[in-house]
Amino acid sequence: MYRTLQNELALVNDVVTRIIAEDPFPESVRPSCLAAAVRSYPVRGGKRLRPALLLWANGALGGDPDQAVFAGCAVELFHTWTLVHDDIIDEDDLRRGKPTAHVEVASHAEQAYGKPKALTDKFGRDMAILCGDIQQAWAMNMLLRSREKGVEASLLADLLVRFQEVNNLLISGEALDVEFPMRDLGEITKEEVRKMILGKTSCLLKFSVQCGGAIALGHADFGKERLAALGNFAEELGIAFQLRDDYLGIFGDEKTFGKPIGSDFQEGKPTLLYLDAMSLLPETGKKRLKELTGLPRYSPGAIDEIRTLLKESGAESKCLQEIAHLTEKAHSRLMTLPENKYKKLLEDLLSYLLERTV
Amino acid sequence: MYRTLQNELALVNDVVTRIIAEDPFPESVRPSCLAAAVRSYPVRGGKRLRPALLLWANGALGGDPDQAVFAGCAVELFHTWTLVHDDIIDEDDLRRGKPTAHVEVASHAEQAYGKPKALTDKFGRDMAILCGDIQQAWAMNMLLRSREKGVEASLLADLLVRFQEVNNLLISGEALDVEFPMRDLGEITKEEVRKMILGKTSCLLKFSVQCGGAIALGHADFGKERLAALGNFAEELGIAFQLRDDYLGIFGDEKTFGKPIGSDFQEGKPTLLYLDAMSLLPETGKKRLKELTGLPRYSPGAIDEIRTLLKESGAESKCLQEIAHLTEKAHSRLMTLPENKYKKLLEDLLSYLLERTV
Repeated sequence: MYRTLQNELALVNDVVTRIIAEDPFPESVRPSCLAAAVRSYPVRGGKRLRPALLLWANGALGGDPDQAVFAGCAVELFHTWTLVHDDIIDEDDLRRGKPTAHVEVASHAEQAYGKPKALTDKFGRDMAILCGDIQQAWAMNMLLRSREKGVEASLLADLLVRFQEVNNLLISGEALDVEFPMRDLGEITKEEVRKMILGKTSCLLKFSVQCGGAIALGHADFGKERLAALGNFAEELGIAFQLRDDYLGIFGDEKTFGKPIGSDFQEGKPTLLYLDAMSLLPETGKKRLKELTGLPRYSPGAIDEIRTLLKESGAESKCLQEIAHLTEKAHSRLMTLPENKYKKLLEDLLSYLLERTV
Repeated sequence: MYRTLQNELALVNDVVTRIIAEDPFPESVRPSCLAAAVRSYPVRGGKRLRPALLLWANGALGGDPDQAVFAGCAVELFHTWTLVHDDIIDEDDLRRGKPTAHVEVASHAEQAYGKPKALTDKFGRDMAILCGDIQQAWAMNMLLRSREKGVEASLLADLLVRFQEVNNLLISGEALDVEFPMRDLGEITKEEVRKMILGKTSCLLKFSVQCGGAIALGHADFGKERLAALGNFAEELGIAFQLRDDYLGIFGDEKTFGKPIGSDFQEGKPTLLYLDAMSLLPETGKKRLKELTGLPRYSPGAIDEIRTLLKESGAESKCLQEIAHLTEKAHSRLMTLPENKYKKLLEDLLSYLLERTV
């Protein structure tokens, strides 16, 4: 199952990693610990979901994916700079099983300079801010390299305008996510959570397929026919993926999910699943579910009680229906595309990402 | 004296402030406190040195500065995002007489959310990181608006490639400045300090004049003739300005200089003035000057002693000669340009910025 998909993803990873590793852009960065940080995340690998979406959307619309390869690397670099800044903000220590950028630079500084830990920790954070800043420029530079493959400057200018809009949307999504915990959970609306998901998860996926498609078609009219269809496909895929993540975060199995079950409730995150339950439950249920957020620990009993409340309210089945509905819709968007290998890969990727809900 | 220059700078400020204030890019930013932060620095005014250099370089090479006006706003926005991130790193509270971005958002958060100060301070820093990120995208978006004025996409693509190189150089300059205090002052080389100055001060000035010139000429071959001359002019202007700042930082008058005299010594900054003195002084003088760095307070006696050491070593006169030499060189670069109003403005700006050394 999914053997072709896995092979093709591995091929995308190979080419993206090679181009990024060989690109000269970070060579002139100083000091050397910053140069190392700039290269660190991008060569760590990962799913390379965004380049895959870009290259396959390009192929699906009859393009030559080789022409879109720098654009594929650009969306990956763009993704990594947002991760570097996210990791500072979230004070995370690990990213893909290795130290986060700020932790990596801080450890280097501790050994290199022999200063107090408070100073080297701050140095790590400061350098990580600058690291993300340079990676943002690197992403733009990488997209501009598409001229080497014959992509017209006027198309690139259009794509760059869209890319800046993605920055705006994506950062707004991140900023809403940072702002939510500052507010009373009860006053956060579904509209705001939806905007957050569209920003944090969907908009770069959407740009990736539309950028790949635009390079195939030679225009960046994202609202038109096939580019619009691709955009809707990626947007629905993104929202469905996030809903599935919310669902598995409480109904999943800790071993396969990879994160502690109940952590969204512990952190008081306004997931759509939670907000739906709060609007559907009677007063006593609302009160009880609220009491079950922000606990220091989650016993199996507490998890069970949350699951029951989500089920009884109808929020659980609403969430599953929404995932199924979005997956169906995303799938239908692809129907308008010509039959070829790349369309099949996009279909497989959709099923692969959204299939498992336990 | 400089009345024409002042009037023309005021005109540049008017047009830049208006375009930035009216530009729709930040309208979709969420939450609203982040949108406010994104607009905050760019509309605070300031000298608008970079847009002035860009527009006048454009005029000097026979362009119509109106065609370059979005590029002028772009370099100003680029400058502001670097200030926002610098201010977080330097933990500064004030920027142009008002609270820095992170302090402004933190104060808002303190009032709006009623959370502990440690949380609202962190929220201010987090939002300021994201604020600079969005401003970086805004700068690119603004440059791309030049198409509205008929600037060719292929020229813009060339300019955007250069702009990313500026990011790399500028951030490396900032990063070296952040790294220096982590190291032993004695091991920092003049070469490194020069690279820091070229990055932090010169490279955006250089890009500004070359970008303006390129729009006038219709090509971005920065190494060629007049664009090269303009680039050298701005680079020399930038280094001379920094040397003058170092000089006034110890030999200036606190009232006109605006910062406490001796603060570079207090912070242990490796200025070229200091490094020259350390290489020229005999052992006893070296030892004494080293003792005079990093003191908690600087009495008039300590300032006098530093001044004497800098004079006796010859570092003071070397610094003044270097400023004069660079000013002369920068001036001679302009000789190759045609005589017109804009060339005169560039000459006046050079004298105005570098004239006062007390």
